[in-house]
Amino acid sequence: MEAASYNFPTRMIFGPGTRAQLGDLLKAEGKSRPLIVTDKGIAGLPFLGEMSDDLKAGGLEPAVYSAIFGNPVKSQVVSGVEAYRAHNADSLIILGGGAALDVGKVIALMINHPGDVFDYEDGNPDMPPVDKDIPFNICVPTTAGTGSEVGRSSVISDDETHVKRIIFDPRMMPPLVVADPELTIGLPAGVTAATGVDALSHSVEAYLSKGYHPMADGIALEGIRMVKDNLQTAVETPTDIVARGNMLMASTMGATAFQKGLGVTHSCAHALSAVCDLHHGLAIALMLPACMRFNASTVPERMDRLKYAVDTEQPFDQWLEAFNKAVNLPGGLGEVGVKEEHIAKLVDIAIVDVCHPCNPREVSREDFAALFKEAL
Amino acid sequence: MEAASYNFPTRMIFGPGTRAQLGDLLKAEGKSRPLIVTDKGIAGLPFLGEMSDDLKAGGLEPAVYSAIFGNPVKSQVVSGVEAYRAHNADSLIILGGGAALDVGKVIALMINHPGDVFDYEDGNPDMPPVDKDIPFNICVPTTAGTGSEVGRSSVISDDETHVKRIIFDPRMMPPLVVADPELTIGLPAGVTAATGVDALSHSVEAYLSKGYHPMADGIALEGIRMVKDNLQTAVETPTDIVARGNMLMASTMGATAFQKGLGVTHSCAHALSAVCDLHHGLAIALMLPACMRFNASTVPERMDRLKYAVDTEQPFDQWLEAFNKAVNLPGGLGEVGVKEEHIAKLVDIAIVDVCHPCNPREVSREDFAALFKEAL
Repeated sequence: MEAASYNFPTRMIFGPGTRAQLGDLLKAEGKSRPLIVTDKGIAGLPFLGEMSDDLKAGGLEPAVYSAIFGNPVKSQVVSGVEAYRAHNADSLIILGGGAALDVGKVIALMINHPGDVFDYEDGNPDMPPVDKDIPFNICVPTTAGTGSEVGRSSVISDDETHVKRIIFDPRMMPPLVVADPELTIGLPAGVTAATGVDALSHSVEAYLSKGYHPMADGIALEGIRMVKDNLQTAVETPTDIVARGNMLMASTMGATAFQKGLGVTHSCAHALSAVCDLHHGLAIALMLPACMRFNASTVPERMDRLKYAVDTEQPFDQWLEAFNKAVNLPGGLGEVGVKEEHIAKLVDIAIVDVCHPCNPREVSREDFAALFKEAL
Repeated sequence: MEAASYNFPTRMIFGPGTRAQLGDLLKAEGKSRPLIVTDKGIAGLPFLGEMSDDLKAGGLEPAVYSAIFGNPVKSQVVSGVEAYRAHNADSLIILGGGAALDVGKVIALMINHPGDVFDYEDGNPDMPPVDKDIPFNICVPTTAGTGSEVGRSSVISDDETHVKRIIFDPRMMPPLVVADPELTIGLPAGVTAATGVDALSHSVEAYLSKGYHPMADGIALEGIRMVKDNLQTAVETPTDIVARGNMLMASTMGATAFQKGLGVTHSCAHALSAVCDLHHGLAIALMLPACMRFNASTVPERMDRLKYAVDTEQPFDQWLEAFNKAVNLPGGLGEVGVKEEHIAKLVDIAIVDVCHPCNPREVSREDFAALFKEAL
């Protein structure tokens, strides 16, 4: 697998070892004091130290902010902005999985924009204008799933209520992505599997979502094929750099495709993270088969093309169940602590989520309750 | 078919009637004196006058430069730059088919950049830096084929030698596209067919070209499906706005996909335009079946996926021949004035063309000679 560079949906430098270019890329923009925003898990891994040392050897003065953990919350953004100011930083390297990328992108937004983080929630009629400078930032994903590195939004929760809010602005698209699959080699098998099915779900839900966006449709179908061809290898042979690279690419494709929209599965998963603090990718994987069964009769032609993409004769929802099993994911929500008594609260949150209005089939409260029950 | 807006590969406003937004889009950028760059054919059509009147009614002061005709040549760029200066323009509306878009994009480049147009030829080791302001421009395609509105290059010929040169810089990507399929309704059937097969060929050659670019692959396959589903309708029922819109979208998809690369068909077509002044799309359509026959055994799996995309059991080259026939294109180069005696000169030009090095199968002088002969 060789390095390559791409120009849409944003500028991307892709390939094994490309993280070595970070220093030169910052210097090309006239930057010298990056704040590396990352999570607590990565703070303990050798590659973060190596990255810092490389940057210093190149004459830069990096600092690290690594207070991110769990599902991202507002207080992590607030202290990240403080860390940026304390370092007198001029740029960011945003390094990690979905949580770190989501927090880092909002830190970048909030450096020069006034008010509270949640003032910038998607759809807020009183949202302040995003018209000030957003510091140069390079997103460096370490999981292949969220695709937040090519997204124009972040999901940030309220520290107390755990309610997820979507912070969105077109200018939140990172100006540069360095996608180095070597950084994903150390992921535990369970995280590889759950984040991989999250990438799959982005392409599946985008492809099925309402609206006319043929470019997204094409990217989605190819992304689905790539997850089918590579995720099991990445789980079983973690050092397979071709499988890791293809999964990282499939992840960016899923997130590019979902500029079109998502669907019912994401509304369910957002509720499961809020109520049961479930890992997003795991919640997605456990909901996806039931949600696709729910959609099947509404969009039969599109379901046929999904079957072609994954090369199966089975109904697509059955193929998804077998795929979850093949990558060793649990068989149901019951196995990860979700109980029937959670369902009422889950429905309350799912029904107000912004994703399901794009779903090809309308979803009622009763539908959500039935879907959660089915997925137990 | 409703209006929609997209964000990659560049900002695009798509849909019937969207040209009415041009004035407001310019004003949003603080512009008031657009130069409309277009071709001689469009200069005589009512919609150009209507567009000018609309802009004036909106308080803008447009001027028109419409000296473009035939395959684009350097002198058209030079006089376009003069027209921009004479009008004291602050922006461009680049309106037309491939020729007008290609010339207009290079006019925009040359407004603030010094030297000769051909100094900016792709691969020139002494190319001056593209580091100055490029005036704001909106590309408005009137054919569905070239996709130049989403491309970062233009093909401009030398006025005397007719040799085609590729002017390329990433900053040549237009910052805004207004893609209004109503503007394509007046195209003659022959132009609709030839430009439509050009769009098809972009996706086909990009999909088969060497290199790792899965996002381009997905866009290409979906673009191919859309041409297959819509071109014949657009030819036979020119006012079918859904078919026209899908063809315009498929055209932008082909040109987006070919950021990955093109192939042997384009090298042949470039030679045919240079030697025999053949319309680019027509040259492509007449070469494509032979060129795909040439590629078939090198990339059999990809050929199978092309067959799925166009829903055929035939070999792909045979399907292409039948498709040309279905949209009433000629059956061979001999029917459009190309003779056996042209072949030596055609080979001389094709072999040095920049496209075929991306072709999945290597192409020798003998191969080119055989392909031209086969396509006669």
